[in-house]
Amino acid sequence: MNRAIGVIDSGVGGLTVAYELMRQLPNEKLIYVGDTLRCPYGPRPEEQVVQYTLEMVQFLMKQNIKMVVVACNTATAFTIERLKKTLPIPVIGVIKPGARAAINATKNKDIGVIGTIGTVKSHAYVNALKKINQSLQVTTLACPKFVPLVESGITNGDRALSVIKDTLQPLVNTNIDTLVLGCTHYPLLGDLIQQVMGEEVNIISSSEETARETSMILEMQGILQKEEQAITHKFYTTGDVVHFEKLSDIIFGQTKNHIAIDQAVLEEIVL
Amino acid sequence: MNRAIGVIDSGVGGLTVAYELMRQLPNEKLIYVGDTLRCPYGPRPEEQVVQYTLEMVQFLMKQNIKMVVVACNTATAFTIERLKKTLPIPVIGVIKPGARAAINATKNKDIGVIGTIGTVKSHAYVNALKKINQSLQVTTLACPKFVPLVESGITNGDRALSVIKDTLQPLVNTNIDTLVLGCTHYPLLGDLIQQVMGEEVNIISSSEETARETSMILEMQGILQKEEQAITHKFYTTGDVVHFEKLSDIIFGQTKNHIAIDQAVLEEIVL
Repeated sequence: MNRAIGVIDSGVGGLTVAYELMRQLPNEKLIYVGDTLRCPYGPRPEEQVVQYTLEMVQFLMKQNIKMVVVACNTATAFTIERLKKTLPIPVIGVIKPGARAAINATKNKDIGVIGTIGTVKSHAYVNALKKINQSLQVTTLACPKFVPLVESGITNGDRALSVIKDTLQPLVNTNIDTLVLGCTHYPLLGDLIQQVMGEEVNIISSSEETARETSMILEMQGILQKEEQAITHKFYTTGDVVHFEKLSDIIFGQTKNHIAIDQAVLEEIVL
Repeated sequence: MNRAIGVIDSGVGGLTVAYELMRQLPNEKLIYVGDTLRCPYGPRPEEQVVQYTLEMVQFLMKQNIKMVVVACNTATAFTIERLKKTLPIPVIGVIKPGARAAINATKNKDIGVIGTIGTVKSHAYVNALKKINQSLQVTTLACPKFVPLVESGITNGDRALSVIKDTLQPLVNTNIDTLVLGCTHYPLLGDLIQQVMGEEVNIISSSEETARETSMILEMQGILQKEEQAITHKFYTTGDVVHFEKLSDIIFGQTKNHIAIDQAVLEEIVL
């Protein structure tokens, strides 16, 4: 079934989810909307996040998508249950896939979760983990400096390493054996985070895990695209196309030739 | 929802799936049937495997289970599509979860799969992998000596290591970066397999991955048991209870006090 998968994000963080979808599901076409104009969603009130997310979903639904991937942690925390109830197509968020992968990976039941201030405050990961297993130890840590690093294109080198070392200090040499990257920007800092935490800590990328569970949903619903096809993925930004393109270069590298980037104007939804 | 999850297997291999379900979903109650009397299924004709599997499913359906986990690769290969079409409750097999985890884990798209002769001959893993991504390199290897090792309780030490070394020789120092344990007995040899393959190879346990995807299905279907409860898991064997108990000791160790083992008599189904 060659209808596209719709991916929505507050900006460019969701591009790591898009990258993983392209890697793990190479037959699938994507249509992505990043609301860079109104990014970040983290500090916004819930009602606003819901409104903006629904506007992106509406934009994609007009393009006959077969599934929605909410590739933003804040948007997932505030809208996933509502979208699951109201949309006629399958919906997946980024939080539960990361939680389930962490539960699989941990041996000592001591799990760390890092994310934006908004995500940590929402307790979404703690709730998702504890709903499955009440005896898990979960330590969360907000890493407000990580997104600005990635957004400025600094994903390796001494400066990035030093910021990551300082920020993760409270988690280093603790008992946690598994660390969830609870923000879709963080996989771009994955190697440095692994280096700081030590090789023995399992690093879970919610982007990778969301792509994997998307694969499962497509198969379960019988809407997996099984044949190879010539694909141009469509990427829309509500903000500056040049800035969006620059950041997508970091994430997509050489696979970028299958991508068309364009501006999106979202229709307002009054809640 | 505190109805049990039903788990079926040709014998004791599926106990590694049960172990993972208990580990990853501690609120869920299991009812397991192992057809040790007619094990192994691998060399049997398809029609017989279908009949035996349906007999186990029928046995469990009478106990009001909420989901079926087919914890045997051969049974999965021959019956999963049929069960999905005919049962009124969700069904999961062990093959696709392992395939999806391998696609997530591989970086160079070069995947190895080890299993019984039956599973390797069925091409079930190759098909599951290639359906998602035609450009994967997949190398399969039958390891007929591994199940007898585990069934005799030999899961570590020099003899096990030497058998594993000899058997996996064709895969060692090849390009594969990910190896799927495509038989539910093999996770018990996981540490030795990792040692022989080298630390840089990702070892994927289809047992772990099936438990993880079961967790996802329970959540998607709204049938996850969210509260802790006092649980005694029921384990049935069609064969010798004492032998079954001995092998379950190896797998469950100290968690065994929550398990009751009993004999099952399956009603015949004429296809």
